Amino acid sequence: MIEYRNLRVAILGAGAVGAQVASMLLRNGEELAQRAGAGLELVGVAVRDLDAPRTAELPRELLTTDAERLIVGADIVVELIGGLEPARTLLLQAIGSGADVVTANKALLATHGPELFDLAEQVGAQLYYEAAVGGAIPIIRPLRDSLAGDRVDRILGIVNGTTNFILDRMDREGESLDAALTTARELGYAEADPTADITGVDAAQKAAILATLAFHTSVPVDSVHREGITEVTHAQVAAARRAGYVIKLLAICERVLGADGAQRGVSARVHPALVPVGHPLATVHGVNNAVFLEAEAAGDLMFYGAGAGGVPTASAVLGDLVSAARRHVAGGPGVAESTRAELPVLPIGDVRTRYRITLHVPDRPGVLATVAGVFSDHGVSVEAVEQSIDESPAGGPGGPGGADRGDTGAAGPTATLVIGTHEAAERDLGACVDALAASDVVDRVESVLRVEGL
Amino acid sequence: MIEYRNLRVAILGAGAVGAQVASMLLRNGEELAQRAGAGLELVGVAVRDLDAPRTAELPRELLTTDAERLIVGADIVVELIGGLEPARTLLLQAIGSGADVVTANKALLATHGPELFDLAEQVGAQLYYEAAVGGAIPIIRPLRDSLAGDRVDRILGIVNGTTNFILDRMDREGESLDAALTTARELGYAEADPTADITGVDAAQKAAILATLAFHTSVPVDSVHREGITEVTHAQVAAARRAGYVIKLLAICERVLGADGAQRGVSARVHPALVPVGHPLATVHGVNNAVFLEAEAAGDLMFYGAGAGGVPTASAVLGDLVSAARRHVAGGPGVAESTRAELPVLPIGDVRTRYRITLHVPDRPGVLATVAGVFSDHGVSVEAVEQSIDESPAGGPGGPGGADRGDTGAAGPTATLVIGTHEAAERDLGACVDALAASDVVDRVESVLRVEGL
Repeated sequence: MIEYRNLRVAILGAGAVGAQVASMLLRNGEELAQRAGAGLELVGVAVRDLDAPRTAELPRELLTTDAERLIVGADIVVELIGGLEPARTLLLQAIGSGADVVTANKALLATHGPELFDLAEQVGAQLYYEAAVGGAIPIIRPLRDSLAGDRVDRILGIVNGTTNFILDRMDREGESLDAALTTARELGYAEADPTADITGVDAAQKAAILATLAFHTSVPVDSVHREGITEVTHAQVAAARRAGYVIKLLAICERVLGADGAQRGVSARVHPALVPVGHPLATVHGVNNAVFLEAEAAGDLMFYGAGAGGVPTASAVLGDLVSAARRHVAGGPGVAESTRAELPVLPIGDVRTRYRITLHVPDRPGVLATVAGVFSDHGVSVEAVEQSIDESPAGGPGGPGGADRGDTGAAGPTATLVIGTHEAAERDLGACVDALAASDVVDRVESVLRVEGL
Repeated sequence: MIEYRNLRVAILGAGAVGAQVASMLLRNGEELAQRAGAGLELVGVAVRDLDAPRTAELPRELLTTDAERLIVGADIVVELIGGLEPARTLLLQAIGSGADVVTANKALLATHGPELFDLAEQVGAQLYYEAAVGGAIPIIRPLRDSLAGDRVDRILGIVNGTTNFILDRMDREGESLDAALTTARELGYAEADPTADITGVDAAQKAAILATLAFHTSVPVDSVHREGITEVTHAQVAAARRAGYVIKLLAICERVLGADGAQRGVSARVHPALVPVGHPLATVHGVNNAVFLEAEAAGDLMFYGAGAGGVPTASAVLGDLVSAARRHVAGGPGVAESTRAELPVLPIGDVRTRYRITLHVPDRPGVLATVAGVFSDHGVSVEAVEQSIDESPAGGPGGPGGADRGDTGAAGPTATLVIGTHEAAERDLGACVDALAASDVVDRVESVLRVEGL
């Protein structure tokens, strides 16, 4: 039997992830020690309530309500409390005392990342956070290390399992948003309060973390443009499917180039987007996550797997724990996060993408020309137009209402225009849509959706 | 401008990958230095012929034919010569002198890995080899670090782009093996001598590397069972497609459990296999690679991307170079490869999988019962049988030949039996197939294919 140096591991939090990490560490300790080259001694698990129910049973004597005291003397502190406080204060204390830190706390990293990374750099400690994005999917380490010699141009991520489940149900089962959310709740895929998921807050935090890493630039979460899935309707999902797309909530991080091809800065955003059915992201179903990535030399890469859940996330946390232990054995200070590129973080208005806009217009001559004029006035180039006559309640185009085709009456027959654009700046497109909405020849702007992955 | 400590980088080889790495290092040196926290000074590129054509232009004064001398004093040696010698001798010399080493040399690692890793551990150097498997796809680092706290149960990898391209053409374009190979050559996806690809040698080397990492156990390449794609026919591919499968050349690494569920050991093998069309690996087209992985806690993960090519592979090499530089800056010895589990490496006979066996038999009563008896005698459990009457050259089952249905004449009508089995040991299945081939009631065993990913 090999004798290892023992490292003292403190776990903060015993929720779905924390309880699993503690339990797996106790169960597989000898195997992990072999891989780490050091013993991993669990010195305690800080909890709020000693008697709360846990998803995995833990020895009572390991539990404590005194997190601050538990940290003292720990070599590695694993933070799985979540939220901003007391997680922030406890992690600053842990790093300040020289401990390496493992965390799955996306909210904390997206909000106070620079403060934590700076302190770690000062004291030579290291912060590991593979579990903060994509659950068990290795994405932080590939971005931080494997692609460190390449230039990442673009990330398209399905990073929120709850919303992917809901959109997938709407697409494949024909459910409404509300019905799909209810199903997600019943299956334990949505929390009692799903606001952070369906409004895109969770995805935006992950986008901030991915963009910061990929572009070596601090991208704070409040610079991430955010639209959730609350406005997505079953009709939109069905229309998208007919047109060869699926709607996915994407976290998008990209380098923004100017008209001259020079790099202007970077942007991060979260919104529902049309993804062509042939794109690898379109095949990501249920609560799974995937990160699709375009790099200059590596080309297209995709990482796919379970994006959440206590057990998968515990896998990522334990991987970080072994990495931290190996670093302790090897000695030397940690490697600072590289944010030295510090490119400008651009607002959503500077982002260029393709759009698919659905309008209801009166079905009479001259309307299409006027609509096309609005696009061209705003510098938005139209790629394709599909027109279909709406069935009027009074009997459709062939019915009584059909008689006033060519008339100007507002109650006359209407048509649906679906306009696909070439790449345009969000700012120009926004002004164009405002002008369309205000125009006499447009009854209603039904939807404006961005197209990604073409 | 920040001043960094300079690290001396020597590159051995200026082929498709080497020339790209040198060129990108010269072009992006300042950016890489920011990320590494150290300058990366290219001190030279060792080549066989100073005047050979290169895929990227390099300053003449950097080229040298004296690799041994170039290594002296280098902090990081990047080996991109390929093959066993002189690569092995040069890397041993580099590691012996305390340099960290980056290599893409799968043949060398699969054959002499332990010798290199042992020396590196002795002197406290580190070996990086992300580019050896899956080109630009980060797979070594996820296995080595991200999954270090988990238990990998199974890897199914499409790790050879040439054969995936060929099988994909046979499936999607209906080409024969020879025609598809010709197309691959024309497009530069197959080498002039494609033997190592189509016989599975390249994939077997990668399987050995993946299995060694995943199971913390030395798995030498000569313990990897290997079958190439040379026997795969267009008829098999077409029949597979009709039955809901695609044929892929898979590198399979797995833990082998006994009947009692206890772990007996590990195995690695390479062979063509039937993959259900709904499996993520079935959607990997062209020269792309993908590694699908099942881990105890993480669940199913997949990593996908460009598996070869000078530029993508250079991305992986440069990522390793930055990692090596960061380690140099941090100081301390390298982390030894963990092979301490040293599980038994089992022969192919111990592997259990499902099979799909196609037999031609006389179309007469009692044949199916006899065939079923052969399976049961060998302990192979049949899951499903599909029978179809062969069209006889003389006019098919309804034609003149149909008259002797029920006769025993060898020239009578025949049927095709496709038998799907439950999981069975390769050893038992092999004996069963031998018995079928020798049986009076079997005219011919057309194909025996393993089914993976169910």
